[in-house]
Amino acid sequence: MPLKPSNSIPDIVIGRLPLYLRALTRLQQEGREVTSSHELGHKLGISSAQIRKDLSHFGGFGKQGTGYQIDYLVNKLRQVMQVNQEWDVALVGAGNLGNAISQYRGFRDRGFRVRWVFDADPSKIGQPIDNLIVQPLDELQATITEHGVQIAMIAVPAEYAQDVANSLIEAGVRAILNYAPININVPDNVMVQYIDPVAHLQHMTYYLKED
Amino acid sequence: MPLKPSNSIPDIVIGRLPLYLRALTRLQQEGREVTSSHELGHKLGISSAQIRKDLSHFGGFGKQGTGYQIDYLVNKLRQVMQVNQEWDVALVGAGNLGNAISQYRGFRDRGFRVRWVFDADPSKIGQPIDNLIVQPLDELQATITEHGVQIAMIAVPAEYAQDVANSLIEAGVRAILNYAPININVPDNVMVQYIDPVAHLQHMTYYLKED
Repeated sequence: MPLKPSNSIPDIVIGRLPLYLRALTRLQQEGREVTSSHELGHKLGISSAQIRKDLSHFGGFGKQGTGYQIDYLVNKLRQVMQVNQEWDVALVGAGNLGNAISQYRGFRDRGFRVRWVFDADPSKIGQPIDNLIVQPLDELQATITEHGVQIAMIAVPAEYAQDVANSLIEAGVRAILNYAPININVPDNVMVQYIDPVAHLQHMTYYLKED
Repeated sequence: MPLKPSNSIPDIVIGRLPLYLRALTRLQQEGREVTSSHELGHKLGISSAQIRKDLSHFGGFGKQGTGYQIDYLVNKLRQVMQVNQEWDVALVGAGNLGNAISQYRGFRDRGFRVRWVFDADPSKIGQPIDNLIVQPLDELQATITEHGVQIAMIAVPAEYAQDVANSLIEAGVRAILNYAPININVPDNVMVQYIDPVAHLQHMTYYLKED
């Protein structure tokens, strides 16, 4: 199951598309119909020229002087990122963090559904989280293979993250969002992204005036 | 309270320092004393040349052929990022996400302590979260000013995030980690970083084969 061949669109552009979609969806919710690269740029702290250039990779969305049709652009970006469908996601780890992730309401309307939660802890297995029941880690691979799951989130302690990732990948997962504060090694045909709030905080304290 | 004047070290380098520190701390916990740019690079998926170049901004850490002394480098990076002290952090939002954040054990040993949790919801105010009591949002500014808090995390619904940020900044906060799925506008002397798991997932689905 190869990833798309690398094409001419830089990955850094792809990384900005979710931010454009998020801002546009917000405008849509406010009842707006048209926006401009200038307005989007102001909201996102990105230059309007950059936004026009990024979006031009995917066709001509805006006419000079008339701006972007928000509904059209939202639909187009959803198509491009393939979130016009809903993706089933497997979550590994049913501790505090796993609990919060599975209860987070923001996945559903942006293309994702946490459909399974796995844990190795016998005291957690069988317990309900939100509307899910925690499944034994032993069943992870069978479930992923059976349902063709391509996306997983890891919310286990750092020392288990690599093993969990290996297991996920062996079963067919191709995209991992890792909340464990450790880098994991994956083969070239697998993507991994990280959520580490402390890394963001430490990045900022570099610039702060000392107490 | 100006930020450090921009110096010669690019922000993208500063952004990698927390990853180096995280990997080095892990090696330290495993009882290791020495590592190399090659080993770090392998763990982090960053070239060893890049690592040597990044670290050279902060002095000569490694001797050719003998590698890096882990304890020394850990201490040095903590100093550089100013996390050799513990920073008090204010958290706004005591919902599921705020709960998970305040219970997260990973802040403490990496330089941060969530010391206050604020919420506007009367049913949450006065309730315990972990070892904290949820404080009324009305008291946010007084608390921040009194204690000179420079760092805050926002975990409120998107529609309230900008107002909360304005309030934090007015009271003296200079670094915001925003978990609300919306961009917030801040003045030049304030930093903001984002945690948005869906943006990471959408970035990856672009490359996935459709179901």
